[in-house]
Amino acid sequence: MSQSKSFQDFRAIDVIRKKRYGMELSQHEIEGLVNAYTDGSIPDYQVSAWLMAVVLRGMSRAETAALTDAMLRSGEVLDLSSLPAKKVDKHSTGGVGDKTSLVLAPLAAAAGVSVPMISGRGLGHTGGTLDKLEAIPGFNVNLPVQDFRRILEACGCAMIGQTAEIAPADRKLYALRDVTGTVESPYLICASIMSKKLAEGIDALLLDVKTGSGAFMKSEKDAAFLAELMVETGERMGKKVIAIITDMDQPLGNMVGNALEVVEVIDILRGEGPEDLRELCLHLSGWMLYMGGVVKTVAEGNQTSADLISSGKALEKFRQMVDLQGGDVHAIDDPKKLPQARNSLKVLSNSSGFVTAIMCESVGTACVILGGGRERKEDTVDPAVGIVVHKKVHDRVEAGEPLATIYYNSESKAERSKQLILESYKIGGAAPATKRPLIHRVIGKSGGTH
Amino acid sequence: MSQSKSFQDFRAIDVIRKKRYGMELSQHEIEGLVNAYTDGSIPDYQVSAWLMAVVLRGMSRAETAALTDAMLRSGEVLDLSSLPAKKVDKHSTGGVGDKTSLVLAPLAAAAGVSVPMISGRGLGHTGGTLDKLEAIPGFNVNLPVQDFRRILEACGCAMIGQTAEIAPADRKLYALRDVTGTVESPYLICASIMSKKLAEGIDALLLDVKTGSGAFMKSEKDAAFLAELMVETGERMGKKVIAIITDMDQPLGNMVGNALEVVEVIDILRGEGPEDLRELCLHLSGWMLYMGGVVKTVAEGNQTSADLISSGKALEKFRQMVDLQGGDVHAIDDPKKLPQARNSLKVLSNSSGFVTAIMCESVGTACVILGGGRERKEDTVDPAVGIVVHKKVHDRVEAGEPLATIYYNSESKAERSKQLILESYKIGGAAPATKRPLIHRVIGKSGGTH
Repeated sequence: MSQSKSFQDFRAIDVIRKKRYGMELSQHEIEGLVNAYTDGSIPDYQVSAWLMAVVLRGMSRAETAALTDAMLRSGEVLDLSSLPAKKVDKHSTGGVGDKTSLVLAPLAAAAGVSVPMISGRGLGHTGGTLDKLEAIPGFNVNLPVQDFRRILEACGCAMIGQTAEIAPADRKLYALRDVTGTVESPYLICASIMSKKLAEGIDALLLDVKTGSGAFMKSEKDAAFLAELMVETGERMGKKVIAIITDMDQPLGNMVGNALEVVEVIDILRGEGPEDLRELCLHLSGWMLYMGGVVKTVAEGNQTSADLISSGKALEKFRQMVDLQGGDVHAIDDPKKLPQARNSLKVLSNSSGFVTAIMCESVGTACVILGGGRERKEDTVDPAVGIVVHKKVHDRVEAGEPLATIYYNSESKAERSKQLILESYKIGGAAPATKRPLIHRVIGKSGGTH
Repeated sequence: MSQSKSFQDFRAIDVIRKKRYGMELSQHEIEGLVNAYTDGSIPDYQVSAWLMAVVLRGMSRAETAALTDAMLRSGEVLDLSSLPAKKVDKHSTGGVGDKTSLVLAPLAAAAGVSVPMISGRGLGHTGGTLDKLEAIPGFNVNLPVQDFRRILEACGCAMIGQTAEIAPADRKLYALRDVTGTVESPYLICASIMSKKLAEGIDALLLDVKTGSGAFMKSEKDAAFLAELMVETGERMGKKVIAIITDMDQPLGNMVGNALEVVEVIDILRGEGPEDLRELCLHLSGWMLYMGGVVKTVAEGNQTSADLISSGKALEKFRQMVDLQGGDVHAIDDPKKLPQARNSLKVLSNSSGFVTAIMCESVGTACVILGGGRERKEDTVDPAVGIVVHKKVHDRVEAGEPLATIYYNSESKAERSKQLILESYKIGGAAPATKRPLIHRVIGKSGGTH
């Protein structure tokens, strides 16, 4: 009997069995598992069994914090303390047409808050901030940490992808969860998000937790549970964290697809663009300014943000960031220089009435089918394709009137996408009696006048 | 996007997710998973996540039968239809001092039933039939199928280990379960046992499901659940299956350890040996003879078995099987020729009173510590070591009187073993008011006069 091997294996299997029986793991056990997995001393098959046990048995708040902490400390934690401004980041749990990050980073930076934003790519039906940024010709999201820091110092915001140094345990665990049916667990989602965000060296974090037919958390109850978990986990680790539960029951704004969403971001920064997107951007920016200490209330932050858009300072900050990250600023000045699809196609309504609902996840999938997102991690994204939504919930529509326009590069994909969009629209004789609010609720106890 | 790979992966993950959400899998899905795992086209980490989901979500009877069937058909199914006698096997879920297989195979064969027995090795605190047989010098349990069949034809019984051809899916799944904390699931245990047993080409199967402190299923409720699952699974596949729930709350017989257990088997076949072991062997043999159609009632089978022992025919059959499988028959005629430990040590009682309980699993572990079992699969077993129990539950004991004798080859192991045995004995002022029955109940609807 080889004693050392025995001991090694015994520990991993003990942790699996303990979670299997629904018992609480100690910080030491969780840390041991995460470290051993990161350094390759325990195999995927043990960790995937443990992940499934976590999915089905859950975790306590202490376990969730211990997991987050172990994943965070598996890599480098940025030290941005030399920057005088408060560092505030925003994270969204993902949706369809959710391009607020591209508005918020320059907007908050224009107000004097530092925004060190490390973002992800689209997966499933949702888009990803990095894919949107890469629709701008030349924009480089793969910067080494020293360049990230330099740009942040120069301009107040910088937007990059996860580096190899940040939370490597999360990268390994996420890849395993993706292929073992263990993605949808609030505890694992919380640890994955928070470990990466807390590695950014921020003072405060604003979480935009989406709920509705286009969100991962369809019900407000599930969204609130995840939001509370993330807020508590962040607070346990000494950070100011606020979560806002916002609506994702239909696409946010009108444009879905990478280059199209950059167009809509520029519209918003020019003081134009759709009302729902503008309202949400101002609200979230208000919170970021409040959390960053540059205003006294969220309402004041909201007003300051509106002023920074009116004055053109937010757009100028965006242009500066694009320039510093190697992007072509002419595409910002003239969005026609962004990638353009070769063809377009209108999706016409079959009936007259009111839009009573849009199956929002299907619209996201319709964009993925066009090539605007990934079905598998290794897929490449076509920045030019996408969908412009003309009718939203409560809108009157006549038979033969366009519901949406599809921008595409492949006929067969456009046809599949069109069918999905048609099926996603529910049209009835009357508009719904009530409107879903854009902002559902605020979770967190960081105080102040909201 | 590589469509074929996508499709392949998608199926495995769909099956994992479906079970994760507690839904019933189709026969097609279970078969797909088992076949893909056996041929190596899906990785361990997906299967271990699925196994944990099965452990925590359970399986329906139809799913359990489908899993058993898929595992059974992953390899060769023996065709013994050319043998005129009915083929009946017995399987025990494992215990401490449970050496009935070595008595039952020759006993039933002496009565004209054919017993093609494929057995396992000890794991955890329990002993294994193969390890006991290998305590007989020269005895070969690794026979190819044609030799197994030849010996079965010549002598009516043969006892071997699982071959590479029999249920390879079970071998692969069991190895994975062992290291991922997914062993203890009645559904997975049922499929593992039944897939191997039904591959033997038998007509009927007698299951000895153990319950008590020395069994894997400590409670009678859990034992009965597993027993019903196995009986129903076997019946769904057209086999006659009876399960008998028997007591394993203290060691069966007096001897624990491989060579020692062979000594006790010879004692029983000589019409001697401890009463509990003799009673259980006659009862199980009665059932095997009844299921094999050579007697009209279990009681008649019981009597026939007693007669075959008295006449020496059962012992002669055992001697014949040992000879045909390469074992040294002189060790059967003179058990002192079996492996002997170098040293022995008496475990003396610290107090006077009555034995009120024996923590039976600890006695099994005390034997494993001596080297009589395996802590890891790759460990080798010392056939000579073991424990002879002198006091059983209800027995009167005086302080200083021996509770057990330890036969050992290592002082330090003997000391640890002794401590464990001392701790496993509970001694009180009075014997327990009631005696646990040896036979708890019979499960199955194969009819007849029991």
